Amino acid sequence: MLEIEAKARIKNKGEIEQQIVKAGGKYISTQRQKDTYFAHPSRNFEKTDEALRIRTSGSEHFLTYKGPKLDKLTKTREEIEIKLEERGPISEMLNLLGFRKVATVKKTRANYALLDFQISIDDVDGLGHFIEVEKQGGEYKPEELVEALEGLGVKKREMEIRSYLELLLEKKEVNKCQ
Amino acid sequence: MLEIEAKARIKNKGEIEQQIVKAGGKYISTQRQKDTYFAHPSRNFEKTDEALRIRTSGSEHFLTYKGPKLDKLTKTREEIEIKLEERGPISEMLNLLGFRKVATVKKTRANYALLDFQISIDDVDGLGHFIEVEKQGGEYKPEELVEALEGLGVKKREMEIRSYLELLLEKKEVNKCQ
Repeated sequence: MLEIEAKARIKNKGEIEQQIVKAGGKYISTQRQKDTYFAHPSRNFEKTDEALRIRTSGSEHFLTYKGPKLDKLTKTREEIEIKLEERGPISEMLNLLGFRKVATVKKTRANYALLDFQISIDDVDGLGHFIEVEKQGGEYKPEELVEALEGLGVKKREMEIRSYLELLLEKKEVNKCQ
Repeated sequence: MLEIEAKARIKNKGEIEQQIVKAGGKYISTQRQKDTYFAHPSRNFEKTDEALRIRTSGSEHFLTYKGPKLDKLTKTREEIEIKLEERGPISEMLNLLGFRKVATVKKTRANYALLDFQISIDDVDGLGHFIEVEKQGGEYKPEELVEALEGLGVKKREMEIRSYLELLLEKKEVNKCQ
């Protein structure tokens, strides 16, 4: 499945949420999410721009693989997501297969539906607020997502192609250097 | 979870099944099973005596990791089994992570319960009939399994520590050489 996704940093969470509702968006739900990312035993995921993670969202668990990003502005990429009954066994299995834990990203995600888009307002521990617009399957038109974000009052310069994992690891690097 | 398991080749399937029932065993169910085994991207599973497989048993799917065998007579080893909703996505994910398909083992498995043991009578495509006695969890006493097999009329010399995968690969080697 191709995951077509665009993201931007936001400072004005309340205003953006009002814009979503004003544009006809519907609030769906809010979950606490815990994503643990793994390093491959013999491949450098930073260089290949891939990711493997275990996500716990509310009471649900998923194993997710993400392929390299396909364009420079959006986060469009191949995604395979597998639903699991538990978090512990897959974590233990990955460890035994030589996949090492890199970092855990925790956030509170509020979900909205607007036309064909899934919109998330994320409050990421240690990083702040972001908006994500996502479209699963269908035709690959990244500019649609950029337009959707602009329609909600987001500026192009606020868009962010780096993942939360990358942003958190960069922040740690900066902290290390200070 | 420790998987404590012993296996033997049988020629007299009907007699063994009668022995199981005579000893108080109950017939549970029969399934067709398809196991696809994968090679690790950077570790030689043949040398480390590990295995990773996707099993489809009837209409259910599992991802299973098996650690190295812990003794010389039984197939006791660490096992982690994860239930999946589908077979396709995990197969594609393993492929993208560099795990290559090695072989597929197909068999018809009849399951019996006898005391604390799970007993399987397997008809393995290309290999013939086998009996497996298994105990999950509990104390690690491999001799119990050997005694259980002997109690059903199986001789020690008919016991087989090699996996079906190993037996099939060895058979292919032999065929190649002829």
